[in-house]
Amino acid sequence: MNSKIEKLIKQFAKLPRVGARGGQRIVLALLQDKTGRASALAAALADAAATIAPCPVCGVLTDSAAGMCEFCRDASRANGQLCVVRDLADVWTLEKASVFHGRYHIIGGLLSGAAGTLPDDLNIASLPQRIANENITEVIFALPNTVEGKTTQHYIMSAIGDVAGVDFSELASGVPLGGDLDYIDDGTLTLAFGGRKSL
Amino acid sequence: MNSKIEKLIKQFAKLPRVGARGGQRIVLALLQDKTGRASALAAALADAAATIAPCPVCGVLTDSAAGMCEFCRDASRANGQLCVVRDLADVWTLEKASVFHGRYHIIGGLLSGAAGTLPDDLNIASLPQRIANENITEVIFALPNTVEGKTTQHYIMSAIGDVAGVDFSELASGVPLGGDLDYIDDGTLTLAFGGRKSL
Repeated sequence: MNSKIEKLIKQFAKLPRVGARGGQRIVLALLQDKTGRASALAAALADAAATIAPCPVCGVLTDSAAGMCEFCRDASRANGQLCVVRDLADVWTLEKASVFHGRYHIIGGLLSGAAGTLPDDLNIASLPQRIANENITEVIFALPNTVEGKTTQHYIMSAIGDVAGVDFSELASGVPLGGDLDYIDDGTLTLAFGGRKSL
Repeated sequence: MNSKIEKLIKQFAKLPRVGARGGQRIVLALLQDKTGRASALAAALADAAATIAPCPVCGVLTDSAAGMCEFCRDASRANGQLCVVRDLADVWTLEKASVFHGRYHIIGGLLSGAAGTLPDDLNIASLPQRIANENITEVIFALPNTVEGKTTQHYIMSAIGDVAGVDFSELASGVPLGGDLDYIDDGTLTLAFGGRKSL
């Protein structure tokens, strides 16, 4: 196989959920395409790599020429709520559901002994300053409902400490909408029972 | 969502077996990577798009500066055998199994009423000239064992017609009906090559 093609397949194969066979299919589809998709994708990717960067305030990827991201620039989002999420995909998920209208803070990962992720690897240090600067009154944790997510949440809470006028909250745990009890794990059921609401 | 990111996700989503969610994961992984994977991939893809082209003789993608591909340049492959395949992925599959040591001819698709693929859309017209130029004595059809594959094979045979000293053969039906060459193990391919039938 041509070495350039081989190299390109390897680069695509390393992308999430692509793999060797997927990489091969993608490279063949791109290089055999007669409408110039390969060049167009290369140009779009090079442009994005050169101009897209994390928002210096919240970490959302944005056009670096614009400075802050669309959320941090939007004054109507300065409602005192700050939602702490793991990554940008979670921001997109929350935006798609239209459930939150405040500001976001992307920490960029979770504390993990296995992966060797330490507090300094995450975007946590700037949180107290943001809370003061943006008159935050509620910090909502929307981190994954896992041991690592909860560990990270507790670390962040203790790092911020008690700040007058700032409440902390986390997303409710329980049975998902449309969830059949049959298919729900014991841990979720235990949380759902513990958090049962009076009717 | 930032419009550049959105556009990039759409371009990735159109690649084979990626889809909207896969495109999102890939773009996030690339743009959040701190080691420059996005720029490296963009550069490799742009370079390949600019320099890789089908071999003018057989259709195998190759560095266009080199003229013909590695198979057509390799004199040891001028053994009188010509293997007709649908696409480059099939060439790679056959090469991986090391079952064939002659020259390839990629037709670039299959005749299909449903997809509207006509003979002129395929790389068939140059076959008689190749057979004469390269002293081919056997044309081996390694097209998919499907209705469209067989239809295409019969069309090519009738288009070439009877040529003195040229035998036609097809892979033995060790290839499962409806099977795509991509998914067949090397042992089955070896049996199929060994058991090829004269037509």
